[in-house]
Amino acid sequence: MGALHAQNAAANSRLDLAWVADAKLPAAEELASRFGASSCSPEALIADPAVRGIIIASSSDALLGLTLAAAKAGKTVFVEKPLSLSVEQLQTARRTIGPGAPPVFVAFNRRFDPSFKSLRDRLLAGEIGEIETLHLINHDPQAPSLAFVPRSGGLFRDFTVHDFDTARWILGEEIVELFAWASCLIDPGIGELGDVDTAKLFLKTGSGRLCMISNSRRSGYGYDQRIEAFGSKGSLRVDNPAQSAVTRWDGGGVMGDRFFGQFQTRYADAYRLEMDHFADLLAGDTGPATSLDSAIAALRLADAAEESVKTGAPVNLSAGEASS
Amino acid sequence: MGALHAQNAAANSRLDLAWVADAKLPAAEELASRFGASSCSPEALIADPAVRGIIIASSSDALLGLTLAAAKAGKTVFVEKPLSLSVEQLQTARRTIGPGAPPVFVAFNRRFDPSFKSLRDRLLAGEIGEIETLHLINHDPQAPSLAFVPRSGGLFRDFTVHDFDTARWILGEEIVELFAWASCLIDPGIGELGDVDTAKLFLKTGSGRLCMISNSRRSGYGYDQRIEAFGSKGSLRVDNPAQSAVTRWDGGGVMGDRFFGQFQTRYADAYRLEMDHFADLLAGDTGPATSLDSAIAALRLADAAEESVKTGAPVNLSAGEASS
Amino acid sequence: MGALHAQNAAANSRLDLAWVADAKLPAAEELASRFGASSCSPEALIADPAVRGIIIASSSDALLGLTLAAAKAGKTVFVEKPLSLSVEQLQTARRTIGPGAPPVFVAFNRRFDPSFKSLRDRLLAGEIGEIETLHLINHDPQAPSLAFVPRSGGLFRDFTVHDFDTARWILGEEIVELFAWASCLIDPGIGELGDVDTAKLFLKTGSGRLCMISNSRRSGYGYDQRIEAFGSKGSLRVDNPAQSAVTRWDGGGVMGDRFFGQFQTRYADAYRLEMDHFADLLAGDTGPATSLDSAIAALRLADAAEESVKTGAPVNLSAGEASS
Amino acid sequence: MGALHAQNAAANSRLDLAWVADAKLPAAEELASRFGASSCSPEALIADPAVRGIIIASSSDALLGLTLAAAKAGKTVFVEKPLSLSVEQLQTARRTIGPGAPPVFVAFNRRFDPSFKSLRDRLLAGEIGEIETLHLINHDPQAPSLAFVPRSGGLFRDFTVHDFDTARWILGEEIVELFAWASCLIDPGIGELGDVDTAKLFLKTGSGRLCMISNSRRSGYGYDQRIEAFGSKGSLRVDNPAQSAVTRWDGGGVMGDRFFGQFQTRYADAYRLEMDHFADLLAGDTGPATSLDSAIAALRLADAAEESVKTGAPVNLSAGEASS
Repeated sequence: MGALHAQNAAANSRLDLAWVADAKLPAAEELASRFGASSCSPEALIADPAVRGIIIASSSDALLGLTLAAAKAGKTVFVEKPLSLSVEQLQTARRTIGPGAPPVFVAFNRRFDPSFKSLRDRLLAGEIGEIETLHLINHDPQAPSLAFVPRSGGLFRDFTVHDFDTARWILGEEIVELFAWASCLIDPGIGELGDVDTAKLFLKTGSGRLCMISNSRRSGYGYDQRIEAFGSKGSLRVDNPAQSAVTRWDGGGVMGDRFFGQFQTRYADAYRLEMDHFADLLAGDTGPATSLDSAIAALRLADAAEESVKTGAPVNLSAGEASS
Repeated sequence: MGALHAQNAAANSRLDLAWVADAKLPAAEELASRFGASSCSPEALIADPAVRGIIIASSSDALLGLTLAAAKAGKTVFVEKPLSLSVEQLQTARRTIGPGAPPVFVAFNRRFDPSFKSLRDRLLAGEIGEIETLHLINHDPQAPSLAFVPRSGGLFRDFTVHDFDTARWILGEEIVELFAWASCLIDPGIGELGDVDTAKLFLKTGSGRLCMISNSRRSGYGYDQRIEAFGSKGSLRVDNPAQSAVTRWDGGGVMGDRFFGQFQTRYADAYRLEMDHFADLLAGDTGPATSLDSAIAALRLADAAEESVKTGAPVNLSAGEASS
Repeated sequence: MGALHAQNAAANSRLDLAWVADAKLPAAEELASRFGASSCSPEALIADPAVRGIIIASSSDALLGLTLAAAKAGKTVFVEKPLSLSVEQLQTARRTIGPGAPPVFVAFNRRFDPSFKSLRDRLLAGEIGEIETLHLINHDPQAPSLAFVPRSGGLFRDFTVHDFDTARWILGEEIVELFAWASCLIDPGIGELGDVDTAKLFLKTGSGRLCMISNSRRSGYGYDQRIEAFGSKGSLRVDNPAQSAVTRWDGGGVMGDRFFGQFQTRYADAYRLEMDHFADLLAGDTGPATSLDSAIAALRLADAAEESVKTGAPVNLSAGEASS
Repeated sequence: MGALHAQNAAANSRLDLAWVADAKLPAAEELASRFGASSCSPEALIADPAVRGIIIASSSDALLGLTLAAAKAGKTVFVEKPLSLSVEQLQTARRTIGPGAPPVFVAFNRRFDPSFKSLRDRLLAGEIGEIETLHLINHDPQAPSLAFVPRSGGLFRDFTVHDFDTARWILGEEIVELFAWASCLIDPGIGELGDVDTAKLFLKTGSGRLCMISNSRRSGYGYDQRIEAFGSKGSLRVDNPAQSAVTRWDGGGVMGDRFFGQFQTRYADAYRLEMDHFADLLAGDTGPATSLDSAIAALRLADAAEESVKTGAPVNLSAGEASS
């Protein structure tokens, strides 16, 4: 992710990629040289008063510490989701950073996908009347390595967290009830590590809107990440983009191209637009599309999903926290 | 439905539509004359020893009585689902008719839709490996008249019953657990009559397969009845057929034709093939695709869904009953 | 074709299929018995004063003779295209039959395909403004047997004749200029018999509208028969219908079902609607959608195409003949 | 185009955008400042020995002069098609530059569109057997301003030239015969200026392959630039990409998003890949995808098309010139 964000920062004419930092300096040097930047340690970067913003894409367990250090130094922060796997930690971080600090943007890539964004814009414009129910399909091309599973936080915190954020963003309301079923249908090794690889979830908002989420760690056919929004006057939907517009017609039928198999290409536009949003933040044009508040709200739903699976019953959530 | 079945029976070269029966004789006469058949009362029809099979498409509350009378008279029966809204009544009917009697075919139209059937055939042929999860979307074009609601048996017995049958048919296993959420989002009048118009349901089979059902009494865009089956090697799916293959490209975008708005056209092929199945039954070539057993199994799930909505909790089902 | 038309006539509640006639009586008997009709010789059929209409689907070289005999006997006639391969013969037949006779309906199946018809209706309704250019793709699933080629009349009279009729029908104007290129790219055996299997044609109407026709005797992927109509405000198009609404997603891509491989299924609806049109003709509700005039106009274009290929130059046509 | 190419050059980590040159210096300054480059006059740029490659995107009539000057100075050149509207001028330029000079890359964007390129790759890989016929649809969103028409070189040299290059590239053979029909159906003003806005063309290769090109200056629905390649075992095709993956289902039907309306977005990937090809050229990894030879070959076909329209007859072309 670091290399990808560096590429997008370098290509963005509103940003000046000055430094690439890494605890392992040779790695920083290699990447920096590709984009005409200099290299340094994370500490040096944070200490540099000329630096106005920092993009953090480290290993998961270092994200929060770096974010706090950067925020304390008055930098505007772009940090990869989920930032932390603990609601409590995030709440503490929010208090530590405080309301007057420069913005912390926790990047949820779905919000920047042009099709997902267009669906939401058209929904808000009233194209299908009021939204009533929402279906989110989120199936990854293939299961992660077993080495990643123990530090992932589990399916809900690592993966479904995207859908929790998307659901809140599109429904425009807090979730008040959640029910989840999960099982291990794909890789028994995931089950042995105490995690699940397949889940179906129901969410309900305060006004009675219903949301269904389908998760799978392995589709067998690339990224399957679709939205179906049903309203009083029709439906708006995002289908999976194909890798090209080429189709073959032969004796077997009509063969369209594959869906994307790599997040770098599936979400290439989203990552570019995230970087543009970071330029907006630095320019002071707007607040972060997804703040610590959003990250906390999504993570609370992940906790609730884990509880629902454990108890086999729906979980009530106090609408509680504000969000962006 | 009577006229539609009469048309298909008359057009089927393996069947000889001899009589059209109706308690209101002029209605029977009118319909009979269209197809070169004679007219009579239901009683006379059942009493005629030359008649080998009877197609029953009366009002809902008369279906079971006519079925029992026809079966008792040794006729092969084609009867519209749901036949009855009471599991107990159907179980009694099954005992009354007994195992040696001519077949009773309870017509669930989805099983005869060529696309739905092709999906199941290809699934059984192993095209996507083992099925793991199943999504059934079943949204009707528009809500029924309020007059129909009180005698419908409620959303689950009248409407979701199709999906319960489809789920059992495609998953090839009994459902052992069910969770349902329902609300009245479309027509408050339906709520005042004690019914719901929108529902999301989860089903689980003994081997851990998951099924999600989405129901709406009103789509705003015609029949939305799709299947998504996810397996270990990919996905098989049925999309909504359009009314024609015409598309318009203009400044607003790419406009495909509407989905079907009438069950007579949406399921025209299915109704023809149901009639062909009836001809198979009369020829002794096969047993009924959907028997009283299937109707009972589907109705038990409807009862469970109603219970789940009432208690707000999942319902366990004994795998119990055999089925066809 | 005879069996197909008999099936549709029998299933049409406005028609009474009384006789099936064939010079080979056992064939007639077999077919008649399937539909509860009687069998007889063609002569007997034509002589029967109770018979009001006759459907003629004989071998190509007998079509015209039977049509003339039936018309002379005062019958309304439904006859398969092309009826004759000679413009002169058709003109003579038209004079022989005369203006006062019951209608002769020369069946061009494309005009009755619901999607083709819907495209034309929407075009006439002004959905894309005035039509400017028209593309007709007409590729058959596979090349005909070499035995058929010598008596086919050649690609233009046997096959392109459909497109000539469709072009006149959709453009709503006579063709005044035509250019054709043809070659034998598929089966050298066709070339040895003096015919071609691949052609591209340009047609121009009096008002300057342009039409492009693409013909191939073998697609390798089923019926490829599409229309693209371009107007001042957009485009209307008919895509190929698939055999089912089933799609498979797997590692290879998105696989839709095959296009149709048999005219009986590709044009099943068209043949049913042709028969309904015949019922309209018998009821006196309308004139024939495609009369001898249409058949003559289409055949004249086939002659011109053959000439253009021979000379390598465009051919001018006098707008001449009226048409329906 | 200059700004677009500058953006892509700046974002390409293999290129170092040092200078932006323009006869109007303030324009050069403004653009240069956006990408951290310096500004200068075209003459100064060509004179700078440190500069290895030059991207030329001036007004049409200056392209050839700048190209010759840059080539003479030993620079690798990236220049916008068509470079010149005269075959003779291009042939002279080719002689002037000579065989030993650094490459001149005449950028035809279609060759770099990922879908067009993928179609050709898959064709060469034999996916549909040998190609037999090719259809190129090339309809622009809207007609150019009348001010542009007189200096455009006419429809064939300005617009169809893309299709001529694409046809040669995909068919892999020289064109030996060409027939063109053209008219002015869209804007009478274009006709008054002696140009046409609508054309249909047929091309034939030495081995008998057929190609059909459809051109329109105005589609009314965005970029309509499709390929249909028909081979012995099936068809490969490129459909129009939509602006997003969002679809709306409502009472009017199924509404997909618009096609692109701006070349900058329709061909965004192609322009990025053109720049990558330029980096390959500078690295000496390859020869130009489209050289002066290609530009000459395409322009000769444009001349032939104009002749065919004038004479109303097909034009024979000596297969003559080699090409890349």
